[in-house]
Amino acid sequence: MAETTKYLIDESRLPKDWYNIAADLPQPPAPPLHPGTRQPIGPADLAPLFPMAIIEQEVSTERYIEIPEPVREVFRLWRPSPLYRAHRLEAALGTPAKIFYKYEGVSPAGSHKPNTAIPQAWYNAQEGVKKLSTETGAGQWGSSLAFAGQLFGLDVTVFQVRVSYDQKPYRRALMETYGARCIASPSRETQAGRHILEQNPDHLGSLGIAISEAVEVAALNEDTKYALGSVLNHVLLHQTIVGQEAILQLEMADADPDVVIGCTGGGSNFAGIAFPFLGLQLRGGRKRRIVAVEPAACPSLTRGKFAYDFGDTAHLTPLVKMHTLGSTFTPPGFHAGGLRYHGMAPMVSHLADLGLIEAQAFHQTACFEAGVLFARTEGIVPAPEANHAIKGVVEEALRCKAEGRAETILFCLSGHGHFDMASYQAYLGGKLSDSDYDEKELAMALSGLPVIA
Amino acid sequence: MAETTKYLIDESRLPKDWYNIAADLPQPPAPPLHPGTRQPIGPADLAPLFPMAIIEQEVSTERYIEIPEPVREVFRLWRPSPLYRAHRLEAALGTPAKIFYKYEGVSPAGSHKPNTAIPQAWYNAQEGVKKLSTETGAGQWGSSLAFAGQLFGLDVTVFQVRVSYDQKPYRRALMETYGARCIASPSRETQAGRHILEQNPDHLGSLGIAISEAVEVAALNEDTKYALGSVLNHVLLHQTIVGQEAILQLEMADADPDVVIGCTGGGSNFAGIAFPFLGLQLRGGRKRRIVAVEPAACPSLTRGKFAYDFGDTAHLTPLVKMHTLGSTFTPPGFHAGGLRYHGMAPMVSHLADLGLIEAQAFHQTACFEAGVLFARTEGIVPAPEANHAIKGVVEEALRCKAEGRAETILFCLSGHGHFDMASYQAYLGGKLSDSDYDEKELAMALSGLPVIA
Repeated sequence: MAETTKYLIDESRLPKDWYNIAADLPQPPAPPLHPGTRQPIGPADLAPLFPMAIIEQEVSTERYIEIPEPVREVFRLWRPSPLYRAHRLEAALGTPAKIFYKYEGVSPAGSHKPNTAIPQAWYNAQEGVKKLSTETGAGQWGSSLAFAGQLFGLDVTVFQVRVSYDQKPYRRALMETYGARCIASPSRETQAGRHILEQNPDHLGSLGIAISEAVEVAALNEDTKYALGSVLNHVLLHQTIVGQEAILQLEMADADPDVVIGCTGGGSNFAGIAFPFLGLQLRGGRKRRIVAVEPAACPSLTRGKFAYDFGDTAHLTPLVKMHTLGSTFTPPGFHAGGLRYHGMAPMVSHLADLGLIEAQAFHQTACFEAGVLFARTEGIVPAPEANHAIKGVVEEALRCKAEGRAETILFCLSGHGHFDMASYQAYLGGKLSDSDYDEKELAMALSGLPVIA
Repeated sequence: MAETTKYLIDESRLPKDWYNIAADLPQPPAPPLHPGTRQPIGPADLAPLFPMAIIEQEVSTERYIEIPEPVREVFRLWRPSPLYRAHRLEAALGTPAKIFYKYEGVSPAGSHKPNTAIPQAWYNAQEGVKKLSTETGAGQWGSSLAFAGQLFGLDVTVFQVRVSYDQKPYRRALMETYGARCIASPSRETQAGRHILEQNPDHLGSLGIAISEAVEVAALNEDTKYALGSVLNHVLLHQTIVGQEAILQLEMADADPDVVIGCTGGGSNFAGIAFPFLGLQLRGGRKRRIVAVEPAACPSLTRGKFAYDFGDTAHLTPLVKMHTLGSTFTPPGFHAGGLRYHGMAPMVSHLADLGLIEAQAFHQTACFEAGVLFARTEGIVPAPEANHAIKGVVEEALRCKAEGRAETILFCLSGHGHFDMASYQAYLGGKLSDSDYDEKELAMALSGLPVIA
């Protein structure tokens, strides 16, 4: 009889609560500061941008926060997501390690992003909000929020970085299929956008500018709120359903991971798989290695400073203490667009500072090599972001082989790569380079830190 | 308590056999004829192209044919696939009908095609074959066979229609990620291709030419066999795992479909969902409506002749009795590439001729409208092919609403549309037309039928 490959749990076991790691921290993270007053921000400062329920989650120290039933209803479209044992990858590597992966590509948008888009849209709808504004780079987050808004009757406006808007029309088509309005950023629809275009009408845009535009629209319109797809505590909270399910599924598999691995951009995917396991440890459970894998070309955890910095380039957001390359740092144009962020979620940064998690960085060609091996063995073509996690897994599995240790490795396969075949084309055609950041530019960006001591 | 959305069965209930409808037919279909002798073909005629196990399945009248355990092993990567209740679509339509869909987009290639690619590759590998050749239009079949070949150590060569090779580089990237070699067809690698290129070096290619090239390579090379992704009996057989699973899952849902709907190109997707239910009926069970939905621009079942015809434009294949628009018919360039075939599987055609199935045809804009409604309610963006089935479902659901009947409708959502966002972009931008075939050309193509009386 063959070994089981897939571990599915029944809809009835869909988690009823998110896990809030703030409840179990040995010490609290540094508070976010108002960009003007440099004083800790309060709910009133955030109220123009977020509904009250989200603001409460942002600062909550309750261990478990109930997932609203209408949100669970939507989750049932694809959740619980499958946990897989990677038998064929193990065989190809010749490793004694047992490799498990939690697969989030089964969501309608093909990634983990709907896990937070759905509750964010629902809380906004509950508080009478009619419109949401957001930014997107490659479009994973924008398409997830577009879908979520559609389900709860919210109009969604997405400021899409112009270079992505022009070069990735299919991502835009997905957002529009879900009913969202996409605007190339910088745009003439906001003060921030017009200001940039006056200086340079052909500006290609950046995530920082798109954030500024989306925030401005929300701040100036009573019926509009802003939604963010990573970094903030409530976003990380919403992703913990991934790890919560994985714990149940690994019980079915009679397995207990020695190493838990996730890729990190803003940090929410990593938090989703890692925090529930870290919570077990913080409450007295066994110690596991928890590994964040980031791109070597944008290495906030491995090369950044842990310091107060701005979340955007225009310096409109609160100051947060995080691992950052500096808000003026521009990562080179590698293919994992979801990992191209100068900072790291403050909560993930705090845990790294406490020594509770490890960080590793890999260059993109090595990650694509691991991703192609995964596709040829396990069948799923991973998103370029997820290839970073897979590279981390392959390294651990080969270490296990060298050491003759049958460790259990868990990672999150955060999305499929069906929208990213251009990057595979480039890799297979030998046209992908490991273009690195400019050391001088990084030094310059870091020299401005901390913004406040 | 919310109603269940998803019906999953455990890997242990993965079907052990395919269902062969040939066992239950009231009368057998007309035999395929040799293109030269016009006599019924025998195993020896097919041996250069297919392994013996496949040839046996092609002519078998055994009701159940065992699925080899190594094939089931691979199937466990995504099978059993989920059955969904479309609560939100029902609500949007205001219909009393209960709508269920079997979702095949969870496979690694994003469609139902791996259901036959995996066993075809396995049987070939078992009989010592080293290489497979095939053709592909848009790439769904080519990528599925590429993946299957990779798993069992077979080199896969895909002749991809040139216009698709040039215009859909991402499909090619997927095939190459899975390790296949893609060749633009017509090519200089075959006699057939060179002949075409001598007449027209800029020929855009066609499925018919690509078939000729793939068949030629298999016929001339001892170590190479040919694989086909639809039309033939063994391919339809392999797809019946879809309907077999659906029967088990509908039992879980305590539901019994009154109408079963599938889209039809070559016929294998339709056969997969429909034949197991039709089998129940042929063995004395209740009568259900079984509906094949095809594109109005390529309407083989609704406008074609049931007559002996060639499967390819170059007239190298056996003559088969099928619903056909004539092998010289060129369908207009609509977006459901998987449905652009002049003929219909002989077995599906035979059942239509016996009055056991119905057929409907819809134009593509109406199908995309239904597909966008589906995406905005159920979340999954369907492949353009599957939109035809959804259009059929919407029509039935609205009929139920008008008649006040709470019928149960089942359909197969054969694949996701993540590789097809260009067609959604065209639809949403108002650039999609219902370009029809030329009536005179159809009359001309039909006038050559039957090739043999």
